[in-house]
Amino acid sequence: MSSTAQIGVTGLAVMGRNLARNFARNGYTVALHNRTTAKTRALVEEFGDEGDFVATESAEDFVAALERPRRLVVMVKAGDPTDAVIAEFAPLLEPGDMIIDGGNAHFADTRRRERDLRDQGIHFVGTGVSGGEEGALNGPSIMPGGSKESYASLGPMLEKISAKAKDGAPCVTHIGPDGAGHFVKMVHNGIEYADMQLIAEAYQLLRDVAGYSPAEIADIFRTWNTGRLDSYLIEITAEVLSHTDAATDKPFVDVVLDQAEQKGTGRWTVQIALDLGVPVSGIAEAVFARSVSGHAALREASRHLAGPTASTLGKDEAAAFADQVEQALYASKIVAYTQGFHQIAAGSEQYDWNINLGEVAAIWRGGCIIRAAFLDRISSAYEAQPQLPSLLADKSFAKEIAAAQDDWRTVIATAVTQGVPTPAFAATLAYYDSLRAERLPAALTQGQRDYFGAHTYHRSDREGTFHTLWGGDKTETES
Amino acid sequence: MSSTAQIGVTGLAVMGRNLARNFARNGYTVALHNRTTAKTRALVEEFGDEGDFVATESAEDFVAALERPRRLVVMVKAGDPTDAVIAEFAPLLEPGDMIIDGGNAHFADTRRRERDLRDQGIHFVGTGVSGGEEGALNGPSIMPGGSKESYASLGPMLEKISAKAKDGAPCVTHIGPDGAGHFVKMVHNGIEYADMQLIAEAYQLLRDVAGYSPAEIADIFRTWNTGRLDSYLIEITAEVLSHTDAATDKPFVDVVLDQAEQKGTGRWTVQIALDLGVPVSGIAEAVFARSVSGHAALREASRHLAGPTASTLGKDEAAAFADQVEQALYASKIVAYTQGFHQIAAGSEQYDWNINLGEVAAIWRGGCIIRAAFLDRISSAYEAQPQLPSLLADKSFAKEIAAAQDDWRTVIATAVTQGVPTPAFAATLAYYDSLRAERLPAALTQGQRDYFGAHTYHRSDREGTFHTLWGGDKTETES
Repeated sequence: MSSTAQIGVTGLAVMGRNLARNFARNGYTVALHNRTTAKTRALVEEFGDEGDFVATESAEDFVAALERPRRLVVMVKAGDPTDAVIAEFAPLLEPGDMIIDGGNAHFADTRRRERDLRDQGIHFVGTGVSGGEEGALNGPSIMPGGSKESYASLGPMLEKISAKAKDGAPCVTHIGPDGAGHFVKMVHNGIEYADMQLIAEAYQLLRDVAGYSPAEIADIFRTWNTGRLDSYLIEITAEVLSHTDAATDKPFVDVVLDQAEQKGTGRWTVQIALDLGVPVSGIAEAVFARSVSGHAALREASRHLAGPTASTLGKDEAAAFADQVEQALYASKIVAYTQGFHQIAAGSEQYDWNINLGEVAAIWRGGCIIRAAFLDRISSAYEAQPQLPSLLADKSFAKEIAAAQDDWRTVIATAVTQGVPTPAFAATLAYYDSLRAERLPAALTQGQRDYFGAHTYHRSDREGTFHTLWGGDKTETES
Repeated sequence: MSSTAQIGVTGLAVMGRNLARNFARNGYTVALHNRTTAKTRALVEEFGDEGDFVATESAEDFVAALERPRRLVVMVKAGDPTDAVIAEFAPLLEPGDMIIDGGNAHFADTRRRERDLRDQGIHFVGTGVSGGEEGALNGPSIMPGGSKESYASLGPMLEKISAKAKDGAPCVTHIGPDGAGHFVKMVHNGIEYADMQLIAEAYQLLRDVAGYSPAEIADIFRTWNTGRLDSYLIEITAEVLSHTDAATDKPFVDVVLDQAEQKGTGRWTVQIALDLGVPVSGIAEAVFARSVSGHAALREASRHLAGPTASTLGKDEAAAFADQVEQALYASKIVAYTQGFHQIAAGSEQYDWNINLGEVAAIWRGGCIIRAAFLDRISSAYEAQPQLPSLLADKSFAKEIAAAQDDWRTVIATAVTQGVPTPAFAATLAYYDSLRAERLPAALTQGQRDYFGAHTYHRSDREGTFHTLWGGDKTETES
């Protein structure tokens, strides 16, 4: 077998298959491999005319089909299956070859794998791929980690198959060493959770407080989609809300069981944020909201709990309220992204990744689930000021929130008063108010900790570590 | 050396020293051991007249001093030091002996250690100890895990040294196998974080909205402490708030740097809750609030952000508002405990621990940081109904929240409107409103997930797993 393939894909489930087709459609010769050969054959039969495929049956043939340095894309389940595939292929590879893991791996696993393979001279490229099946085929947002060397070889190909932003820029960049790519993909998904939850809360308010029907709310979202909230998620929300269930002739959203599921990257985002000491309350509330919704027995046992019923507004008030909800949604969205980018910055610092936050925002402008006009703005903010301590420190975002905050507060106060749960709206506002507070009650917390555990405290008027003898004469000692 | 000691303590920093003294004061002969012998000698010199101590210098002598089966309490730093001590002593022990780890270990480590030592016939008893230095000396709340057999031997001693609830019951019980004790201690700490944060938010509202001074707020807390909020944390809050800094003559709470620190058990609680799928939003917001407060640079960069300044109330209104804050604090506290007990129930189910939730509440009534009259109520609720799906399903708690909820909403709406951050108040109310909601917008979330990722959904009107062909003719397929 001659080594003609520029890239190989092993693992031909829907994501792998579509990525392989995407490479082939872009003119690359693609070697194919799958544990069961039926999938390999099916791909060639069905899509063989889209480009040059080299179907292989054994691991040896697959490796032999690749030109050197080999680029081997692994598209299998995250976790043990990924390790199994690496164990199968690594012994067949040579120094300089690349294994690209395009699955949703935990970045800590990616760091381990990269380290292990580095000793062998193999580049392990943990790569976030966002955009679902559709994106994999027509252009995903791609977040490769790994060595600079590997990106020099692989980058041009990824740039070709990736989504393109409106200005034509490919939605891919070298994120940083080892686990940086999968880390950024994880936070992307965490932000996606928050974004979806904020939209869900906006929907519920428009439904319960403003009294709009799903179809009317779809129209409102369509209008919003022409403004600063312009995004894929707002667009598909309108699609979902305007859909009528054929079986019942009811709004689709009313026949779907209201128990949200999750696959784990949102949870990971929050867990890692806690390790990094980054407050990601908007993302956490989104993860919790899904899990609350899924606790059917708990909800059943809680239906009797007392609370108000939201009172529906008149037509003019409803329209005014919808405008306020748009302000609230936008303000909360800025905060959710602020928290996510804070986490990326903290991860970058912790692991010496040197991630360019502006570039991250830029490559999310197309292909991925959170693609939005808004990301142009974030990208510009970081370009203008790469050391921006927080998105909220960007003048133009701060100005927008300043304009939105009255409505933001009104909407949340209304929700609280009328009994409509808005955990992510409320969490993002509380974060905002905490950050801008001159003094936080954390001083009291420190006092309590010193009281019951002698944990000491600092003073705001001079350096040092202090403890008060609470059980004694309450004098202060310095340690 | 004759083997006369009923118990031994290795690791004589303040917690270990105080526990050793507690055992000795209660009539037990206590063998002492420390890596550096100076601490051992100091303990005997200073406190030798409190009881029977056997000072030992080597690991061998320490083990030889213990009657069989040996009870060896390890009071060293959680993590590697614990493993090092186990590695040192385990080879010297015999089947039936017990190693009691009284540190703040992660329950997963405890499970591993228990498993490893079980093969050797040694009982590893991961034990939560709460109450700080003071409690260790005079009576802590004790949460031992491990085998039933070990509790039969050790329990009576622990019952003797433990705190006693007001009804005289010892604040210790066999929590369950392997890591159950450390798990419950972890959640105890998580609840403690939430409790402290709720108190902090109540304080801030009384300060900023009601316009009270710290000394006045101390008086309000003292009054609260005579009612249903009666608890150690409320008591010490009043102490801290009424304390005047000697150096400046200012309220102590105003000179303490408002950056709260943390040691990790709150973070663990949230991370494990996420793994278990338990929404612990009140605890999470408490952990995040501490970390927000500590991000000094971020806060500095955010001080310019727009927001209202809280307007201070008149005297009568302030008093009325304080009453409302009490209602809000109590309602939020019920929810925070509901979330914590949910997590214990979920951990118990996940790891087959068969934890008695009523007993957990009962042994927290004395000795520990969250000790409170309130826990009697929780204990009774679970005694009356061991399978209670949630504390909120208890009629008497539900009734109290029903009475509190109007004020609860008013307080949070006021905070939101006036720009006072109340993340934990808001999160607990949102949890409450989510649980009682007839429909949640999770249905929309499922629709979005099906749209962009073909993740499928369930219907509320019939069984099955469905997918809509969003990109096609929008027919529904069943899988």
